Amino acid sequence: MGKCYDDAMAEFEYIRWLRGQMPSDPRVATGVGDDCAVLAGAGGDDWLVTTDMLLDNVHFVLENTDPRRIGRKAMSVNLSDIAAMAGRPVAAVVAVGLPSSAPESLARELFLGLKERADEFQTVIIGGDTNSWNGPLTLSVTLLGQKGPAGAILRSGARPGDWLFVTGSLGGSILGKHLDFTPRLREGLLLAKQTSLRAMIDISDGLAADANHIAEESGCGILLHAENVPIAPTAFQMNDDKSPLEHALSDGEDFELLFAVPADEGKRLLALQPLPGITLHHVGECVADAGLWLREAGQRRPLPPTGYVHRVG
Amino acid sequence: MGKCYDDAMAEFEYIRWLRGQMPSDPRVATGVGDDCAVLAGAGGDDWLVTTDMLLDNVHFVLENTDPRRIGRKAMSVNLSDIAAMAGRPVAAVVAVGLPSSAPESLARELFLGLKERADEFQTVIIGGDTNSWNGPLTLSVTLLGQKGPAGAILRSGARPGDWLFVTGSLGGSILGKHLDFTPRLREGLLLAKQTSLRAMIDISDGLAADANHIAEESGCGILLHAENVPIAPTAFQMNDDKSPLEHALSDGEDFELLFAVPADEGKRLLALQPLPGITLHHVGECVADAGLWLREAGQRRPLPPTGYVHRVG
Repeated sequence: MGKCYDDAMAEFEYIRWLRGQMPSDPRVATGVGDDCAVLAGAGGDDWLVTTDMLLDNVHFVLENTDPRRIGRKAMSVNLSDIAAMAGRPVAAVVAVGLPSSAPESLARELFLGLKERADEFQTVIIGGDTNSWNGPLTLSVTLLGQKGPAGAILRSGARPGDWLFVTGSLGGSILGKHLDFTPRLREGLLLAKQTSLRAMIDISDGLAADANHIAEESGCGILLHAENVPIAPTAFQMNDDKSPLEHALSDGEDFELLFAVPADEGKRLLALQPLPGITLHHVGECVADAGLWLREAGQRRPLPPTGYVHRVG
Repeated sequence: MGKCYDDAMAEFEYIRWLRGQMPSDPRVATGVGDDCAVLAGAGGDDWLVTTDMLLDNVHFVLENTDPRRIGRKAMSVNLSDIAAMAGRPVAAVVAVGLPSSAPESLARELFLGLKERADEFQTVIIGGDTNSWNGPLTLSVTLLGQKGPAGAILRSGARPGDWLFVTGSLGGSILGKHLDFTPRLREGLLLAKQTSLRAMIDISDGLAADANHIAEESGCGILLHAENVPIAPTAFQMNDDKSPLEHALSDGEDFELLFAVPADEGKRLLALQPLPGITLHHVGECVADAGLWLREAGQRRPLPPTGYVHRVG
């Protein structure tokens, strides 16, 4: 929840303000500021709850995108938030604002994309709200899920000395992966079974920004190792003034998992590589010094949470 | 859920298509086509789930409306869906698309309106998603609630002979009530305690359309009594070519409750008037003949679900 915003700082400030507005409540185990909220049910039957809204020309471009892919993305980004808690998705509701000029097929195609992705992860669509307006396409999914075998994995449990890993590779998702990625639900659950997850998040804002979220919520610092950041082939195809590493650090919408485990567990995972078909990369570690840091060619320097590395000279 | 749409028939057809797409699932006690879905929790701990999206120039006009009222409405329409199930609201998530040209205060004012209304009904906002775009304001709330003392009251339980009631009065909500109405949560719970509710819905589409929803879901017909329809003072102030009765039948966004009870219970309720400060009106009855009917000046004629009474001559 709480992803894309054109001014990331404005969003963070707004969320900080929001959290100040929310008194603690016995019904809420985890509120604003994690991938999902955790709602306390009767008899320990907690629910993970997340919502994400997709907007035309921000998260997709309707003009040149098959509506089924848009539907799939809308479900996938929410599934990814459940993955980030190492949870299991259960049920979704969908609200849509359809442009009044759109063909009648748009609503059906969106739905088929949503349902295709939901079915793939045993998630049932239980309701929705369909509207037409003189604005661009907007759709909002709310997903309910259950905790996995290790409970809800928050952003806040990392400690200095923990190793940080990412699944898969990063950067250049705008070339297609941001629509067609596979939410790392199976991987989140497998990790929860096979290791002791201290903190986890899905990479929606970018590796640097999301590492910073873990650092802030856990009250530690994070040092990223430039040489170990897995750079996706698409990050090399971007043809702009940013380096592939900068793309991997800052692009966002990779929807890979970033997680912290104790160092000895990290060594074991690195050797074991327990995820079928997906390589775990040891991208950094939690440190006692607050803030976000990058170690590159043996030198350590502060890294802005935007992931932009402004080079001198 | 599933309210305002500029072509009501297109919406109904789409929803019919949607329902055909949804196989039954043991996790879903009630799916698409009621005010809330009912999600089966462990140990009978079911959840009511509803979502409603509000769009600029459809459900409000940002240009001339205090954003707090918009926030309140966004929460209220969802609370009203819980009221229509005679349930209790618990927790909400909110997704927002803010126009990039809007002042920074917009997000905060919307939130304060949402929270004010949520607080009033012991509902906790547990998360959200905030975005900025080059489109008009859109906000989507998903609300989770619990069943009341009589379980979840659906649209489908009415039987021929049942009496139909509405709370309050109807028509002309566009003059202000559509923003400032009070969701009938207390009334829904009181009714669930004091009588035997067979079916219930909140009036969002209009008395005729919502009576038709009950008729279709219950597999009976409904006869409305024109003389007993409680016409709001605002319905007389509309100054257009529709009569006050037509406004009361068709305007929608009254957010009053429409419900069916057995006839003997109806007689008792009419005499008892159990709702503090709110008059119950006996607006019609369920009949064996399928369809929607209006009895006016002793004559019975078919009533289109749009509520428009096209007069001859």
